[in-house]
Amino acid sequence: MFRLQDDFTYLMPVHFGGGRFTPDRVVRQRTTTLAMTYETDRGLLEQYIPEGFELISPEVQVIFSKFTEIDWMQGGQYNLVNVASPVRFSGQKDDLEGSYTLVVWENRTAPILGGREQTGIPKIYADIEDLHILRPHYMTNASYEGSTFLNLEFEAEEEITGVEMDAMRSGFSSVNAIGWRYIPKVGAPGAELSQFVLYPQGMKVEHAVAGKGSLKWTTLTPMQNPAQYYIVNSLAALPVEKIKQSVLFEGETFLHAMGARVIE
Amino acid sequence: MFRLQDDFTYLMPVHFGGGRFTPDRVVRQRTTTLAMTYETDRGLLEQYIPEGFELISPEVQVIFSKFTEIDWMQGGQYNLVNVASPVRFSGQKDDLEGSYTLVVWENRTAPILGGREQTGIPKIYADIEDLHILRPHYMTNASYEGSTFLNLEFEAEEEITGVEMDAMRSGFSSVNAIGWRYIPKVGAPGAELSQFVLYPQGMKVEHAVAGKGSLKWTTLTPMQNPAQYYIVNSLAALPVEKIKQSVLFEGETFLHAMGARVIE
Amino acid sequence: MFRLQDDFTYLMPVHFGGGRFTPDRVVRQRTTTLAMTYETDRGLLEQYIPEGFELISPEVQVIFSKFTEIDWMQGGQYNLVNVASPVRFSGQKDDLEGSYTLVVWENRTAPILGGREQTGIPKIYADIEDLHILRPHYMTNASYEGSTFLNLEFEAEEEITGVEMDAMRSGFSSVNAIGWRYIPKVGAPGAELSQFVLYPQGMKVEHAVAGKGSLKWTTLTPMQNPAQYYIVNSLAALPVEKIKQSVLFEGETFLHAMGARVIE
Amino acid sequence: MFRLQDDFTYLMPVHFGGGRFTPDRVVRQRTTTLAMTYETDRGLLEQYIPEGFELISPEVQVIFSKFTEIDWMQGGQYNLVNVASPVRFSGQKDDLEGSYTLVVWENRTAPILGGREQTGIPKIYADIEDLHILRPHYMTNASYEGSTFLNLEFEAEEEITGVEMDAMRSGFSSVNAIGWRYIPKVGAPGAELSQFVLYPQGMKVEHAVAGKGSLKWTTLTPMQNPAQYYIVNSLAALPVEKIKQSVLFEGETFLHAMGARVIE
Repeated sequence: MFRLQDDFTYLMPVHFGGGRFTPDRVVRQRTTTLAMTYETDRGLLEQYIPEGFELISPEVQVIFSKFTEIDWMQGGQYNLVNVASPVRFSGQKDDLEGSYTLVVWENRTAPILGGREQTGIPKIYADIEDLHILRPHYMTNASYEGSTFLNLEFEAEEEITGVEMDAMRSGFSSVNAIGWRYIPKVGAPGAELSQFVLYPQGMKVEHAVAGKGSLKWTTLTPMQNPAQYYIVNSLAALPVEKIKQSVLFEGETFLHAMGARVIE
Repeated sequence: MFRLQDDFTYLMPVHFGGGRFTPDRVVRQRTTTLAMTYETDRGLLEQYIPEGFELISPEVQVIFSKFTEIDWMQGGQYNLVNVASPVRFSGQKDDLEGSYTLVVWENRTAPILGGREQTGIPKIYADIEDLHILRPHYMTNASYEGSTFLNLEFEAEEEITGVEMDAMRSGFSSVNAIGWRYIPKVGAPGAELSQFVLYPQGMKVEHAVAGKGSLKWTTLTPMQNPAQYYIVNSLAALPVEKIKQSVLFEGETFLHAMGARVIE
Repeated sequence: MFRLQDDFTYLMPVHFGGGRFTPDRVVRQRTTTLAMTYETDRGLLEQYIPEGFELISPEVQVIFSKFTEIDWMQGGQYNLVNVASPVRFSGQKDDLEGSYTLVVWENRTAPILGGREQTGIPKIYADIEDLHILRPHYMTNASYEGSTFLNLEFEAEEEITGVEMDAMRSGFSSVNAIGWRYIPKVGAPGAELSQFVLYPQGMKVEHAVAGKGSLKWTTLTPMQNPAQYYIVNSLAALPVEKIKQSVLFEGETFLHAMGARVIE
Repeated sequence: MFRLQDDFTYLMPVHFGGGRFTPDRVVRQRTTTLAMTYETDRGLLEQYIPEGFELISPEVQVIFSKFTEIDWMQGGQYNLVNVASPVRFSGQKDDLEGSYTLVVWENRTAPILGGREQTGIPKIYADIEDLHILRPHYMTNASYEGSTFLNLEFEAEEEITGVEMDAMRSGFSSVNAIGWRYIPKVGAPGAELSQFVLYPQGMKVEHAVAGKGSLKWTTLTPMQNPAQYYIVNSLAALPVEKIKQSVLFEGETFLHAMGARVIE
């Protein structure tokens, strides 16, 4: 019969075996990232920030990344669109600033499962195009079963160097990503498990270009996207008041795969 | 700020809202199903049956289903390959027979997430072909990033009617699917949540054909399927000693969406 | 060395062999079809009708079909969106009415190649969703690399029977599809081969439902669809003045695979 | 009505317009290429070389390329697997050496259509994985509807520099790709159009690594790949006697888009 091993960590299905818990394990991947931050309406955005958090500024950051040479995926790759806002968490024990993850779309299921179940990052599936590159123009989109819901465009303007590059490197070198890990009760309303999880992540920016970014959300009907239409439409309802920063960069991502912790 | 509602059930991301918990809710979908059961080696199979369960017979049931007109997916569709074995569970409170789910591959992420987090069904992603139908020949396959790992073939022979059909209808009208819902600790080995969940499911068989089935598992390397190779290879290592039953049917599936319960 | 066989017909690559030309070969497939016809502006539509043809009425017919159990594809399947207008051809030898094919999108490349090279049907690729069915609602869409360009919706109202069904059966039992087969010169402008081809096709309608249809074209940019944006945008520029007929049916398609002929 | 323009070149559908024929147009794209050449049996390989050509040596070259930043696709991308052998063509007018294209698989339909109809390159569709990269290991595969038919693996060993690099640069700077453009008669056996086309292509190799390559062909049944099984199986029947050269490189591809010519 199958027996759990004490010092192992598992994901479903459990009974084919797990892996030794190795707290110092660092996972790496190459990344090409297009990041945009825009100001929006504070009241509308706060609807989606849970109690216990304070919205530092009414901003939404949308990040497209293409990850390649992912070592924990044996050299595989995937794309994501990460949507987050800057928050302060003031708990019983922890008081910290971070990036509250509103939603992440990924075009590969394996990292979705790990991200949700291990660290509470609310990942869901979408088709996400690789960047189309006709220098200096870049574009990509996210869609669900043929229905476009997000367009991202970027026009590269100038390489980031010097002090500005130092600031950018530093900003991305350690990001306090925060997720809400929530597992429902079986056969009843409410949570069997509900925790906020801090998952520090770092990117080593190697090369960066500033430019003009634009993005467009398109609302969807339930028939177009049954499990996500309300998420898309909630985001589409937030006005894009001003795009503050648009940057494209290449680099490497380092993750302490088991370095997340519950915050209280 | 976002606040949870008491009588709601949620999935990540929680903060865009959940749905009212409605215990009587029945979800429906059309199904075309190809089911095969084969005998295998008891000792090898028992490696994957957790303590607390007893293997009733050394059998593996592989079911391909194409679900369409899925009402909770607003009319969408997806394919699955369900792999399970017959077990008896003898717990503190519960004593029952059921079908222990070894693994389920699905080609759509939304039902994977719900199945894992709500009911512990160990669903993972694969590309699964629709049935190719050149009567009386049927075939499909499952693959991961271009690497085939399962081939299913079927040659229809005769329609199932009369007493045999009654038996079949009755057999599929209520299936005690059992999953192991397991959520790991954050930042430590072991489980934050570990439960066996019973999820009764029913199919109304409308039309069925018996025939000759065959299936072939192909082993994969970690580079071919980083997150699942050991699952595929564990199943591929189980000898297909004798295919006992192969049947193709059409019908409707009824699920009490919130009718699962933890067994102890 | 490879040598051509006299009574064979070939497609590229030629040197791995072709198939015997069998003029009586009938190919069959199951079909689920959603057909809509709308009136548009005559002048705008006539821009796309070549000289030698006369537009019988300023109408565009859009047909979505899902073909399954395709015998020449060994039981495989694919989806298409066919866009055509009613024309009269008055040539030196031939005088006939037919359906001039403006464009066909298909989600499988093999039938695209055969359709273009053997019979001049201007097939190109798009992702085309299977029908989402939440009775009485049906919807599908066509997209290119994540950019939606066509939405089709249908609400079933009443089964078609009696005289109306007879008329419909008769209308679909033989359709004079006309394509313009055109192969460019190598290293020079103009055509190496330019012919109009008549490809009679028949559907046996088994079951049909009338209803309310709607469709929406969405324009695309060159970066969204480099090889087709001008086709999409030309169609999107034709006003949908009135949807005359919307019907959903199931049936079987019979094609004399080699029954096409050049018209002059 | 639609009228052809004299100095234009067109692809189906013609009636939405073509493009001006511009003989000097150069199209560019970035490429990551994995190239392997192997010796095989002369007699078996010659079965697929048409009369008029002489096989220079019994070799098969298999090239995987990922093309990105493709300017004629407005910055889009696609993957291909090109299979060719070295030949001498001795015609009435032309006497030249080149690379006879046995088959090309591509995972995007638009370049397949242009390649076939404009220059006779026998392109067909397959799913082709992006390179999985776990340095120094690289792998990819080609599959059709879930059935793997080609595995490519590479282990990087040493960067190519100096004289060797010069030779390689020179070898790839101009390749005489030869295709057989063949369009069948309508309603009869035989060809309406049959020409050999020379399409000179050049790659500018920027960075190259030599290593150990391996490849594996897997045969398919007609139900697994109805339109191509005999092509796959013909190639799979050629023994891989010795892999002569395996190299991975990055660079840029330059094509005189309209620089092909018919050879006689």
